[in-house]
Amino acid sequence: MSKTEARLAELQIQYDQFVEAGLKLDLTRGKPSAEQLDLSNELDGILKGFYILQDGTDVRNYGGILGIPEARKLGADLLGVSTDSVMVGGNSSLTLMYHYVAHKVRQWRAAGASEFKFLCPVPGYDRHFTICEDFDIEMINVPLLADGPDMDMIEKLVSEDAAIKGIWCVPKYANPTGQTYSRGVVERIAALPLAAADGFQIMWDNAYSVHDLEGTTEDLPDLLALAAEKGTADQVAILASTSKITLAGAGISFLAATPAQLKAFEKYLSAQTIGFDKVNQLRHVHFLEDMDGIKAHMVKHRDIIKPKFDLVLKKLQDHLGGKDLATWTTPAGGYFISLDTKPGLASEVVAMAGAAGVKLTPAGATYPYGKDPDNTNIRIAPTYPSIEELDQAMDVFVTCVELATLGTV
Amino acid sequence: MSKTEARLAELQIQYDQFVEAGLKLDLTRGKPSAEQLDLSNELDGILKGFYILQDGTDVRNYGGILGIPEARKLGADLLGVSTDSVMVGGNSSLTLMYHYVAHKVRQWRAAGASEFKFLCPVPGYDRHFTICEDFDIEMINVPLLADGPDMDMIEKLVSEDAAIKGIWCVPKYANPTGQTYSRGVVERIAALPLAAADGFQIMWDNAYSVHDLEGTTEDLPDLLALAAEKGTADQVAILASTSKITLAGAGISFLAATPAQLKAFEKYLSAQTIGFDKVNQLRHVHFLEDMDGIKAHMVKHRDIIKPKFDLVLKKLQDHLGGKDLATWTTPAGGYFISLDTKPGLASEVVAMAGAAGVKLTPAGATYPYGKDPDNTNIRIAPTYPSIEELDQAMDVFVTCVELATLGTV
Repeated sequence: MSKTEARLAELQIQYDQFVEAGLKLDLTRGKPSAEQLDLSNELDGILKGFYILQDGTDVRNYGGILGIPEARKLGADLLGVSTDSVMVGGNSSLTLMYHYVAHKVRQWRAAGASEFKFLCPVPGYDRHFTICEDFDIEMINVPLLADGPDMDMIEKLVSEDAAIKGIWCVPKYANPTGQTYSRGVVERIAALPLAAADGFQIMWDNAYSVHDLEGTTEDLPDLLALAAEKGTADQVAILASTSKITLAGAGISFLAATPAQLKAFEKYLSAQTIGFDKVNQLRHVHFLEDMDGIKAHMVKHRDIIKPKFDLVLKKLQDHLGGKDLATWTTPAGGYFISLDTKPGLASEVVAMAGAAGVKLTPAGATYPYGKDPDNTNIRIAPTYPSIEELDQAMDVFVTCVELATLGTV
Repeated sequence: MSKTEARLAELQIQYDQFVEAGLKLDLTRGKPSAEQLDLSNELDGILKGFYILQDGTDVRNYGGILGIPEARKLGADLLGVSTDSVMVGGNSSLTLMYHYVAHKVRQWRAAGASEFKFLCPVPGYDRHFTICEDFDIEMINVPLLADGPDMDMIEKLVSEDAAIKGIWCVPKYANPTGQTYSRGVVERIAALPLAAADGFQIMWDNAYSVHDLEGTTEDLPDLLALAAEKGTADQVAILASTSKITLAGAGISFLAATPAQLKAFEKYLSAQTIGFDKVNQLRHVHFLEDMDGIKAHMVKHRDIIKPKFDLVLKKLQDHLGGKDLATWTTPAGGYFISLDTKPGLASEVVAMAGAAGVKLTPAGATYPYGKDPDNTNIRIAPTYPSIEELDQAMDVFVTCVELATLGTV
């Protein structure tokens, strides 16, 4: 029996024990834990009967698609833009993204275009890809490099193909790799509409702008300001929400764009809504107050989730480190750790873990059409399980990675 | 000076005094008053820290597009259908309607259709018409008769024109006429998909099902049950919300359809949302509890708004009654009084009232494309102003009606 065979046998016994144990653990979606949600319980009841804004608006009544001024100011602080560049939506920035793309597709069609493609830095966020599929927008994979997407490739593509109408970006603590785009990359992205065909749209999903895992924050350049310098600001939409600040299912969302673009989007939205929930917007203003309030609140999240990220990274290092079994990211913020197996093994690892009761995000989910060309990427979401569950789940996971890798040697 | 000339001179003096007075009154949108909204102030804070449902769901977290079971049950009670036929949305049933039509248009297009028409009982609700315009659906006016839309005309139209794909109905206390469809009409509507081309959709906006102005309620037959008998249930969508029960801008909405149709709609919605605000759904369950709770709550609304309707009707009767100047409805529920001037005068009355500081819904707004062919219909919304404001506004209004009518004699 070779050394590898012996280790394989050992791992197999361990794996069988996990299967026997009948675990039921979940490392899939980036959901906050109940402990994190508890941090925002004060929201319900915070208004204490006061519903009238300074401008006289009764937040309980109909109207106001762009949101209440106080919440627009909060969003402006969060995104580092001016208040008149921000609108406030309902409980989902995904909904705002979906409709912004729908609105743009309609404009492009009206201008005579019929074929649409989007650039998708990979690995990326599956729900961005679903939006493209929903509107028959063809997706083109672009590799994420150390400082952001491969801009040489992107610039070449947009200058050659007029059907390319946009790009999805998660520019800070990216989902799932955790990286933050460099200033150089952001400057080149701001200039993209100049090289592209008419109406190129930058979808800037800044979902994790304040979601630091360390005592510091990574610096993300202000895309809207850079784009304004280059004359491309009308082609930028910045998205964010409080879903991972306050309540995942009952927060508020933000969209930043030029006032002219917001006006056009407001008109588009007016066929489907009289206005988003302004009562919940006011709750959030009272609860978070301003950027200092947001930062102080995020420290409480960090205290809860940092040990979870540390545990995952320690497990990976202890069991897979220095063995040429996998590579993974060490994010300074965000919600995920991204792991790459040896080529061709991701789906097998996910299946093995699933059989042992540990649910992982389906292999391929981080790629357009669910197709990871090398079948290597696995997204680990450490926030939702308890430390104890995470400890168990990671033991199963690292066993699966090693077993799958050695089994194919 | 003839008697008419003398009266005209008198009215003109009166009107000039109103203009002088610089009033600023609004009889436009059907908005609840602050006093009505106060009835639901208990909503904020009602959860007292309890967010976990019987099935273990944490309402604060992501997920659950069809809504929490408890809220689906509440919607089922409200609409008189089974719980598995109801989904719960966000703060706007308009949003659900818009997306249901979008979803159907997509299906029709996929099946090869390219031209779409909807039947619109008139006068009707402008936001239904806006949805049609948004999707390039041509609208066909159908007169509302005493017991509902003109079914002879409708049946003839749908059997002759395959492009007719649907109908908008506000079947109880209709906006703006206040009438409730008879059993005979509802039965014929339930059978419409049998006579129409594939995929004919009944959009049943039951917005005012519990909005009685008298101690009794008008009986509306159960469309979903009637359609089930005829095999057309998959072509029914029933809409409702708590916008005019709890908070106009921060309520919850309901869509009832067959479970199969709900499943298809859930899939459609999944590209744009992870789920609606479940915290607010739970608030509503705690606050309204059940049908008895809803009914008891609606009595409080009635106590506030009935005197306003009575005042409007008294002003109309006192100043315009028996003079062959206008006709109007006396609704037993809902949010509006519908008035018809002599042909061709509605826009003039609205303009005159506007110049005297009384804002009315634009003439034509109750018709598709904003075009009232006879230019007669004016929608009066009595709920939002105070009794004092309403008193003043109606004095202006009746003066304008009489002045416009006599001026053209």
